[in-house]
Amino acid sequence: MTIEEFRKYAHELVDWMADYLNNIEQYPVKAFVAPGEVLHRIPNMPPETGEPFENIFADFIKIILPGMTHWQHPGFMGYFPANSSPPSVLAEMLTATLAAQCMLWQTSPAATELEERMMQWLAHLCGLPTHWHGVIQDTASSATLCALLTAREKYSAQRQMAINQYGFEGQPIFRIYASAESHSSVEKAVRIAGFGSNNLVKVPTDDNFSLKVELLEQQIKEDLQKGYQPLCVVATLGTTSSTGIDPIGPIGRLCQENHMWLHVDAAYAGTALMLPEYRYLAQELSYADSYVFNPHKWMLTNFDCSAYYVKDKEALLRTFEIMPEYLKTPLDRVVNNYRDWGIPLGRRFRALKLWFVLRTYGAENLRALLRHHINLAKQFASWLKADDRFELMAPVHFNLVCFRLKPKQGEDESFTEQRNEQLLNAINQTGHFFLTHTRLNGKYTLRAVFGQTYVKEKHVRALWHLISQLAL
Amino acid sequence: MTIEEFRKYAHELVDWMADYLNNIEQYPVKAFVAPGEVLHRIPNMPPETGEPFENIFADFIKIILPGMTHWQHPGFMGYFPANSSPPSVLAEMLTATLAAQCMLWQTSPAATELEERMMQWLAHLCGLPTHWHGVIQDTASSATLCALLTAREKYSAQRQMAINQYGFEGQPIFRIYASAESHSSVEKAVRIAGFGSNNLVKVPTDDNFSLKVELLEQQIKEDLQKGYQPLCVVATLGTTSSTGIDPIGPIGRLCQENHMWLHVDAAYAGTALMLPEYRYLAQELSYADSYVFNPHKWMLTNFDCSAYYVKDKEALLRTFEIMPEYLKTPLDRVVNNYRDWGIPLGRRFRALKLWFVLRTYGAENLRALLRHHINLAKQFASWLKADDRFELMAPVHFNLVCFRLKPKQGEDESFTEQRNEQLLNAINQTGHFFLTHTRLNGKYTLRAVFGQTYVKEKHVRALWHLISQLAL
Repeated sequence: MTIEEFRKYAHELVDWMADYLNNIEQYPVKAFVAPGEVLHRIPNMPPETGEPFENIFADFIKIILPGMTHWQHPGFMGYFPANSSPPSVLAEMLTATLAAQCMLWQTSPAATELEERMMQWLAHLCGLPTHWHGVIQDTASSATLCALLTAREKYSAQRQMAINQYGFEGQPIFRIYASAESHSSVEKAVRIAGFGSNNLVKVPTDDNFSLKVELLEQQIKEDLQKGYQPLCVVATLGTTSSTGIDPIGPIGRLCQENHMWLHVDAAYAGTALMLPEYRYLAQELSYADSYVFNPHKWMLTNFDCSAYYVKDKEALLRTFEIMPEYLKTPLDRVVNNYRDWGIPLGRRFRALKLWFVLRTYGAENLRALLRHHINLAKQFASWLKADDRFELMAPVHFNLVCFRLKPKQGEDESFTEQRNEQLLNAINQTGHFFLTHTRLNGKYTLRAVFGQTYVKEKHVRALWHLISQLAL
Repeated sequence: MTIEEFRKYAHELVDWMADYLNNIEQYPVKAFVAPGEVLHRIPNMPPETGEPFENIFADFIKIILPGMTHWQHPGFMGYFPANSSPPSVLAEMLTATLAAQCMLWQTSPAATELEERMMQWLAHLCGLPTHWHGVIQDTASSATLCALLTAREKYSAQRQMAINQYGFEGQPIFRIYASAESHSSVEKAVRIAGFGSNNLVKVPTDDNFSLKVELLEQQIKEDLQKGYQPLCVVATLGTTSSTGIDPIGPIGRLCQENHMWLHVDAAYAGTALMLPEYRYLAQELSYADSYVFNPHKWMLTNFDCSAYYVKDKEALLRTFEIMPEYLKTPLDRVVNNYRDWGIPLGRRFRALKLWFVLRTYGAENLRALLRHHINLAKQFASWLKADDRFELMAPVHFNLVCFRLKPKQGEDESFTEQRNEQLLNAINQTGHFFLTHTRLNGKYTLRAVFGQTYVKEKHVRALWHLISQLAL
């Protein structure tokens, strides 16, 4: 494909892309395909000779598109959103064209320095401690793993027995604490770092799905008595099931007293700290040793763009830095080489889309969008609350509403669950909306998140209308 | 930004993108900026109000572009390439627009199934064992970490003491083996997995920078006698410094005898297995338990796209699978949920660009390009060999040439090094080429890789002409 052919096809794609975004509501949110259906429409063998792009794009439309779940559809209300936006897509087009490897300062100085500045912008926008050091990670899962590894390194290096160098031989048994509502990535990171999931203590939560600090304190004491080494607490701002909020201040003071690392996982809800009315959540973040939130979830920025902050940059670098000759450059002591700030060596130019998004919208438009989303959730919750067929299953802290059909009088819980599962399936079968479920206090719960770039009040009204009818 | 504004700007960007690729040789390959120069041109504070896209794009041209190292420039001959191509960029445009989260089958069935098929296509193209299971990872660093974690899980789970669950308590001291020329990501993975870098045995290499199997065998024996537990060998097909090739067959037989995991890191050179003349390298891969190569290096596919294969899929899933309620779907036993195949939960739709690339070029054009690159290296090496000012520092197995200015009679090694460093700087200062260095047998060595999408014989001739003049 020549560059002039590329120009022609790229123009055609741009029109398709704009039309797709204009007409996205014509697609069912969740693909109606059976397992294996797409696979079997793609030949077993790769082609020996090249094919015209027209054929390939036609197959994209015919085979791939019907098999996609449309995450940018305003009716996408499942999981957490991964909202994108026009300026973010524009940046991704440039990123793909430059196709620069941004592992070292030298391999792309502008990418490194723009990343540094964008992380400062985000910290400023969210009222995060100004002395933190930021870096873009792919996901909050990786960021949480980085946090545990750095905590592990810092503890063991202080005792001249760095696990990075010597392994776990002769180390105490470490304990990691997180709420029972913490994300599965915490357990994944605990496993990967070699602590063993048995040493992840899942502390029960209160009625608001917020970690009970007195139980955490008690557990730490008991563990110390048993000879375990409490190492780290992962606190959550906005749990995945219900956006529950752990009490950062009291947890932070406990960590301080016990010389433990505090990692705060605000993957989804962290964006809300842009709003003054949520800023109080940031006040006690000064206790945190590390922090993560995902602009790729609720800040109009394409995945992957997870903002990871750490207080002790030297500990982070000690954890990941390895300096073979072929990666040495004359400026290594002067500049940031972000390959030493995480697991992968190679890195995309991910700061560009943040720059485009933050400048195109400006802080005021982003705040307005967040408030719009949060108001939609409040409105939807108010309708549910006023209807005695439904019950809210958790406080609506942000823009997620957890609800279910109430048990009918004398109804067995398993039957209530079945009715709710049927309701969820019926909603998703319409193709207009896609919701997912969770389990809160053991009870099957529907989740609706209003965080799409293009979601309007009319969509939420339509969802309510549908649910109200289906629940008859 | 409305969607119609997006359409307008995206068309403008497409013309810029095509012009950029057409005129890329007008840019210096490596940015001539000082540390902090770009940073200080970006305001400290994010904007409160939105800005017109025209301003943002103008700043991209004015501030960012002069600070980029141009990885797609045909004169980029440093590190390993990260070559891209028009169809790959077209796919990235669609991926960014769909902006789908591809963590579960349900969250994008077509992305999951296209990934499965593309990994089969790659295996077929490279003659890899057909019973392997493939998944796209972000980088070879992550893939190698996955391999070590899976080896760790498999060994310990067989003894009912899975480290994932119980941690390292009561485990033997594990030993990992790799050649002295293995990539720094092996040591990074050894550290992260908790083995300790002291337990990474770096086995010396022979004159061809190929691991000495007899030394590996001896080391394993000694370690067993000392009570260590040999766990895994990481063999390299194409080392970073010199594309050295470890003897997979003999290493594989040793691994089999000692019940060790064999991971093969073919990050760069793996693409060459598409050529029948290199296919012999694949013959002994049947010994491998896992394998990685990067289409995002030498297969015209944008980063990130690292192809990771594993023999024992169940062991991989046991290592990473955690099933919280909010991620459960009705089809979990029938489909692939690729979030359980690696570290991050979130995943981009990365298979699309592979599909576009493999179909646009077809196997025959990709093979022709690889041969073109390899011939350029042979040609360049022949000129060096015929000129007694230079010496080759390693065999030219693929398309990397390692060379230096020969020591002058009676010249001190440190002075030779200085002359070579000056030569490298002088080449890079022209802006027409960008080469990097390494150290082979302790000697400062220049590396030139000919793997760019648009590199032609004239570029290599021009490089030779320049070097020949500078060496006077």
